[in-house]
Amino acid sequence: MTNDETIMKECIRLAAKGRGFVSPNPLVGSVIIKDNKIIGKGFHKKYGEAHAEVNAVIDAEKNGYSVKGASIYVNLEPCAHHGKTPSCAELIAVNKFREAVIGMQDPYREVNGRGIEILKNAGIKIKTGVLENECRELNRFFVKFVTRKLPYVTLKIAQSIDGKIALNNFESKYITGGASGKIVHRLRSEYDAVLIGRNTALRDDPSLDVRNVKGRNPLRIVIDRRNNLPEALKIFSDNTNDRSFVIADKSSGLKKSPKNLLQLKSENNRFRIKDILKLLYKFNLNSILVEGGSDLFSQFLSENLFDDIYLFIAPKVIGRGLSAFDGMEINTLNDSVMLETEKVIRADNDILIKYKKCSQA
Amino acid sequence: MTNDETIMKECIRLAAKGRGFVSPNPLVGSVIIKDNKIIGKGFHKKYGEAHAEVNAVIDAEKNGYSVKGASIYVNLEPCAHHGKTPSCAELIAVNKFREAVIGMQDPYREVNGRGIEILKNAGIKIKTGVLENECRELNRFFVKFVTRKLPYVTLKIAQSIDGKIALNNFESKYITGGASGKIVHRLRSEYDAVLIGRNTALRDDPSLDVRNVKGRNPLRIVIDRRNNLPEALKIFSDNTNDRSFVIADKSSGLKKSPKNLLQLKSENNRFRIKDILKLLYKFNLNSILVEGGSDLFSQFLSENLFDDIYLFIAPKVIGRGLSAFDGMEINTLNDSVMLETEKVIRADNDILIKYKKCSQA
Repeated sequence: MTNDETIMKECIRLAAKGRGFVSPNPLVGSVIIKDNKIIGKGFHKKYGEAHAEVNAVIDAEKNGYSVKGASIYVNLEPCAHHGKTPSCAELIAVNKFREAVIGMQDPYREVNGRGIEILKNAGIKIKTGVLENECRELNRFFVKFVTRKLPYVTLKIAQSIDGKIALNNFESKYITGGASGKIVHRLRSEYDAVLIGRNTALRDDPSLDVRNVKGRNPLRIVIDRRNNLPEALKIFSDNTNDRSFVIADKSSGLKKSPKNLLQLKSENNRFRIKDILKLLYKFNLNSILVEGGSDLFSQFLSENLFDDIYLFIAPKVIGRGLSAFDGMEINTLNDSVMLETEKVIRADNDILIKYKKCSQA
Repeated sequence: MTNDETIMKECIRLAAKGRGFVSPNPLVGSVIIKDNKIIGKGFHKKYGEAHAEVNAVIDAEKNGYSVKGASIYVNLEPCAHHGKTPSCAELIAVNKFREAVIGMQDPYREVNGRGIEILKNAGIKIKTGVLENECRELNRFFVKFVTRKLPYVTLKIAQSIDGKIALNNFESKYITGGASGKIVHRLRSEYDAVLIGRNTALRDDPSLDVRNVKGRNPLRIVIDRRNNLPEALKIFSDNTNDRSFVIADKSSGLKKSPKNLLQLKSENNRFRIKDILKLLYKFNLNSILVEGGSDLFSQFLSENLFDDIYLFIAPKVIGRGLSAFDGMEINTLNDSVMLETEKVIRADNDILIKYKKCSQA
């Protein structure tokens, strides 16, 4: 690992601290180096607040340093647009940095090379593409959001050895263990929203909140075309029910308060996943964690509109029951949906396998 | 790792070279040390041939050393009984070794401490229990065979992400990839026999041989109560069909040649797994690899007569289909069969998870 890469890794580490709080903005961390020494650090802490570069400059000054002639490291191209804060590219230029080391270009159309252009015009030395893959991975939610205009979608499945997510009587609590639960709660704290289908809401009555780890709750969204789920369900009746939303058919009644109702047009008695995602994109949600059930998982897969799958496998055998994708059927194994095995993690006695959509798909 | 453990590890490595060839004997390796130097090595190569200790002594002599006053390391207590070869304990005593370092006591009733007794009586210094767990693991087939009087049973399952071993139209070839296939073929070369159910034989027409790796073929055993599977199936018609056996009901006809027919009494139109295993024990088979299908897997699980499971998961989604244990059903998740997650191995894009029966079960 080169010196630049080591410092970029620190930018990534800092950036990740903003996870769950900056959406739909990207995660950004910044480190300022002068005379081979770190003189300032910063990251984007919260949507609407100061950008990473600003915080790093403030930190350097607080530490008694002038940033003039220093190198600034940042995992994402500095912004070129006056948004909630002044442009970071201008800040770097005005402060007469000698050099800017950048992880990846910002794909957001209002930046997209224009930040780098400003720096170049100010005579600042530029190095880009340092740990680019890691930087893209860090901001995979943001990159998809601004380039595809859709939220990033992860399917979270908890099943037995024999691939069952519930018994035939619908019992599904709890197949996986405490260590897996913690990972799920951490995921919820990182995604903008959790999405479930009607049956899962009705049968499991889940809380979908963040309990076992520190972190903020996601929005809770349930698809209920006819908008007639019982008000007594936890997501509608607990003390954060203002963060629960229903996606219902345009023709359905307005039982929920209009604030919490997202209306959509259905086709053949179901919503197209693409329409759901477009709707959520409009609400500025850049990441969705889909937690079931089988019909919803199957639709995301059939319509090829997911990004990855977190598959938790508990060391138990259930026998007959429901599998995650029983809502789809193929005629020959050649029609199987192929995925890419990304990573395997042990979670106590459970196994977590992360799958990504195949790049060719 | 102590010096003794390092040498015992070498004994285990040597012993493992006999895998597939010594059953129902144990796997044994031996190393002889004199003046802190390895002067001889040996292992049990084939059932009926010389034991490891004999081969190690011969090797030392071939290397020009006298074993008098040397230390002999062996992963299993030297035998005390004149079997196919003279007793190894006596050999060690007669050759005036100074010390014997032993991995584990031999649980076989004709040895079971009597080998150690012979060595002690000859005034040889004894150290036992060196890497005992590893030595037990190495000889898990043998240990179960002599202590429980049943063969060791591994269920081998190949499934999709969503836990399907076949489509509803029974297509099941091939869910997993080439790297998994190689592991399966290696397993076959190590187990005494492969066991399948009638439907698997009929629908898949598998060869059940060792093709993709070097190794000997296992026996192939199919359960066919009425003994009326077509003679054209590969296992009955290929050029190693003398190594294929049918377990059929005592009341069934004698279509197969009597040599290849194993008769058993059924109850309520099925065989009890316990009866099948007792039968295979009588035929001196110390290890069985069960390769399907769902009914057979379910019976082994329900009757709690398996030892471990090799679960291969291919990175593909199948949708509706058959799962490995669809032959059983429980009413509540509390009745799930709990296993112990032992090990996770990546096989190219597939994942292999090894599960063991819970020790408390």
